[in-house]
Amino acid sequence: LKTKETKSNINGFATYSSGNHGQGMAWSSRLAGFPCTVIVPKTASAAKKNAILGYGAELVECGPKVSDRYDTCDKVRLEKGLEVIPPFDHPDVIAGQGTIGLELLEQVPDLDAVLVPVSGGGMSSGLCVTIKAIKPDVKIFLVTPKGKRLGECLKTGKRPWEGPPQYLDTIADGLRIQPTGYITTPILIKYAEKEVFEVSDEDIVDGMKFVFERLKLVVEPSSATTVAAAFSEQFKSLDPSIRNVALILSGGNVELDKLPW
Amino acid sequence: LKTKETKSNINGFATYSSGNHGQGMAWSSRLAGFPCTVIVPKTASAAKKNAILGYGAELVECGPKVSDRYDTCDKVRLEKGLEVIPPFDHPDVIAGQGTIGLELLEQVPDLDAVLVPVSGGGMSSGLCVTIKAIKPDVKIFLVTPKGKRLGECLKTGKRPWEGPPQYLDTIADGLRIQPTGYITTPILIKYAEKEVFEVSDEDIVDGMKFVFERLKLVVEPSSATTVAAAFSEQFKSLDPSIRNVALILSGGNVELDKLPW
Repeated sequence: LKTKETKSNINGFATYSSGNHGQGMAWSSRLAGFPCTVIVPKTASAAKKNAILGYGAELVECGPKVSDRYDTCDKVRLEKGLEVIPPFDHPDVIAGQGTIGLELLEQVPDLDAVLVPVSGGGMSSGLCVTIKAIKPDVKIFLVTPKGKRLGECLKTGKRPWEGPPQYLDTIADGLRIQPTGYITTPILIKYAEKEVFEVSDEDIVDGMKFVFERLKLVVEPSSATTVAAAFSEQFKSLDPSIRNVALILSGGNVELDKLPW
Repeated sequence: LKTKETKSNINGFATYSSGNHGQGMAWSSRLAGFPCTVIVPKTASAAKKNAILGYGAELVECGPKVSDRYDTCDKVRLEKGLEVIPPFDHPDVIAGQGTIGLELLEQVPDLDAVLVPVSGGGMSSGLCVTIKAIKPDVKIFLVTPKGKRLGECLKTGKRPWEGPPQYLDTIADGLRIQPTGYITTPILIKYAEKEVFEVSDEDIVDGMKFVFERLKLVVEPSSATTVAAAFSEQFKSLDPSIRNVALILSGGNVELDKLPW
């Protein structure tokens, strides 16, 4: 966002994301003194909507389809003359998320591997860029819900998704979009391990409860995917030289009245 | 516990506490290579019992009265020849809890005040000792459930509790015992502010939900008492020079299937 501030005459910002990106845009726009409009599906939880409003942004609701987000955002952009910051497929967003990798290597210099959840690929490609630049030996393992077909993409180097973007049927509501982005995908193909961890809803819920109970952290199902991966048989069969493994817990936007246990 | 290790011939440890102290004793006894027995009321939650067992201690159940704990613990002590480490009224326990104050001042050198929950007074008297020794200007405010009569005790300098120890009727299950200890009370009288924050169950639940939602931390009702105090009208009326205030969140032993909202 800071880079956008210095760019040109900007009236404000718009984005489409009900999760962390929407909240982050709301918060950082307010810090920077700009209005911000966040496009959110009608079906998004009250907790998420309240957080976005609480951080000072305007909410515009849209329909449940993937294309609804883009259409509504474009309409708002034209009406109000706003600058759109998409949730993942944007170099500044990738760079911003990549700072997680900088902090991680500062805190854990002898890191062997990272498990990172993948939705559109903004965070995971950002981590790839920063971590591989500083310590190329660190392995980046991608974690997704069932049915994303990201492993196929990494192994063939081609996008396996055809037609309009689809949503996955998963409890990990931050990871529902199936395809990764047009900027993020080539970065993932270049830097991430070909072996993807695909986790089930059941294992996600177990991982989430473990983190609540023993780490005392409120995490959403999307975060718990990496915990599920770390507890999997697939993880146990990795090279035993991989010892210091970081799990990215990407957010805690949960409906506290509807916890999945 | 380390100090006890070097003391003499010890067969193992015993304590009576279903919360953090029981878990801490279980964990540190295992680290030190000693057996540990924890006396827990039958009514304690499965989550707490499992954590104690998971950290390697033996569990012995007792009845629900305050005196049941002492009686059962004494019986176990004599049978097995164990060293009893009580949950709060013991100089080593007070000193150990006091290290929270050392860490706090290291992290926040310009601290003005601390809000700390009080049960038997081990943690709060430990904080008093370390913080007042290093930075006497820092104010220590004690937080309790309704009905504890601790303010009365601090103002008169006398124990207002008569007869056998009673339990308070509060959702803060770690703070149910009414009187503070015989070692801890004089420390609190000497160092803590006379103004005690007494908080209601309703405000505790609101504070707990706030911490889950916005700080993404799993805290138990006992921890949330300090949050309730910080949101109170009483807190707003404090001297405005009190700006940097630390809230002690003392634990996260909650039944995730029975959250109070």
